[in-house]
Amino acid sequence: MADTEPLTQIRVVLCGTSHPGNIGAAARAMKTMGLSRLHLVAPQRFPDPEAERRAARAGDLLAAAEVHATLDEALRGVAFAVACTTRTREVAVPAATAREAAARVVEVALSQPAALVFGNETYGLTTEDVNKCALLATIPANPGYSSLNLAAAVQVFAYELRMAAASAPEVPGRLLAPHDEVEGFYGHLESVMVDTGFFDPEHPKKLMPRLRRLFARAGLEHDEVNILRGILKALSRPRK
Amino acid sequence: MADTEPLTQIRVVLCGTSHPGNIGAAARAMKTMGLSRLHLVAPQRFPDPEAERRAARAGDLLAAAEVHATLDEALRGVAFAVACTTRTREVAVPAATAREAAARVVEVALSQPAALVFGNETYGLTTEDVNKCALLATIPANPGYSSLNLAAAVQVFAYELRMAAASAPEVPGRLLAPHDEVEGFYGHLESVMVDTGFFDPEHPKKLMPRLRRLFARAGLEHDEVNILRGILKALSRPRK
Repeated sequence: MADTEPLTQIRVVLCGTSHPGNIGAAARAMKTMGLSRLHLVAPQRFPDPEAERRAARAGDLLAAAEVHATLDEALRGVAFAVACTTRTREVAVPAATAREAAARVVEVALSQPAALVFGNETYGLTTEDVNKCALLATIPANPGYSSLNLAAAVQVFAYELRMAAASAPEVPGRLLAPHDEVEGFYGHLESVMVDTGFFDPEHPKKLMPRLRRLFARAGLEHDEVNILRGILKALSRPRK
Repeated sequence: MADTEPLTQIRVVLCGTSHPGNIGAAARAMKTMGLSRLHLVAPQRFPDPEAERRAARAGDLLAAAEVHATLDEALRGVAFAVACTTRTREVAVPAATAREAAARVVEVALSQPAALVFGNETYGLTTEDVNKCALLATIPANPGYSSLNLAAAVQVFAYELRMAAASAPEVPGRLLAPHDEVEGFYGHLESVMVDTGFFDPEHPKKLMPRLRRLFARAGLEHDEVNILRGILKALSRPRK
């Protein structure tokens, strides 16, 4: 089916998961909605029989899961990453509902890899992890008790992706630069700002998060990253 | 908040649940979306420490849960009941997606009690249970593996109810007759058909399910039930 094709381009990235049962239940949730690419960043216990048990007939997703040391590794090649949470907070990236985010993820996934990123069961995502994503997405929830189980949150997002894929236009949007290219640009930008004395890493304030927000909102293309890095390079060359 | 008010009128009915952990996880899923009325029909183990554990901070829903012997008891006073499933099948009631069903449930719940009905983890709902509902709702899923965990299915439906409540019109629709009144009418209709020889309970075929489908589609009001029963009564009176 053509309409579920983009789902094969979407990774689910679970960061620092404590309970292997939740990894298994998340795999099951993914498979029921047609997602298959599970990535784990520093899971506390994996593989584990409890993960197998809770995965039911989604054990194939566990067997194919990729384990990484860092979120950057898990997002290598990803053009659009969404930080998924039920908490609202002060962050450096634009915010949306799960439904709005799903529509944008599917649009990107028509032509490029995309990812949903979930945090630890107790602590959620770190601010650093959220800032590595282009969008923060929230499941609208009871303000008095918004604590969805991890696999339940994966289920809702995966469901919204499937619903979005069923109604997505066939035409892909702009081609976005992959995660590692964009991170390379941020690193370049930061080092140039440090060299010029504009940015003091000892007193960072909100400078880098604000710049990340700006570029995340814009959605950088490959050529744009090259242009920006060309400018940085030109500006940091010693003047004659 | 006025927009979440209808959620307090919506019951979640779990029929013949095998695992108490799923009851707890379903309670947690409900509470995160602002639902609070949990009804259990013949649960295999309840109360149970595993239900408490998986409910996390939704233990109050378990404490207030009502346990019933039959689905009819659990649906007493309910004006609109939806059978929730991930399977498609031959049934006597109209079918819809979870999203469409949520919009209709919220519309009814602006003025009357409504219910979502879920079956056993392995066997789902019985055909008899489905036929007691006005609508069959399906979560669109991977045709190759559509087996959502029970609590995950509750999470998706509860989420769609919250989304629907946030965008519901303020004006309630027609007032529907409660479940027990409608069942009383079906019982009356069946007995009259048997008396007249039109209906042979030994060879029921699909007669009652077809009639249920017709009236479920129409959505009977209290006065309409009275009129129909008046007609039945008049028709079954011995002629002069």
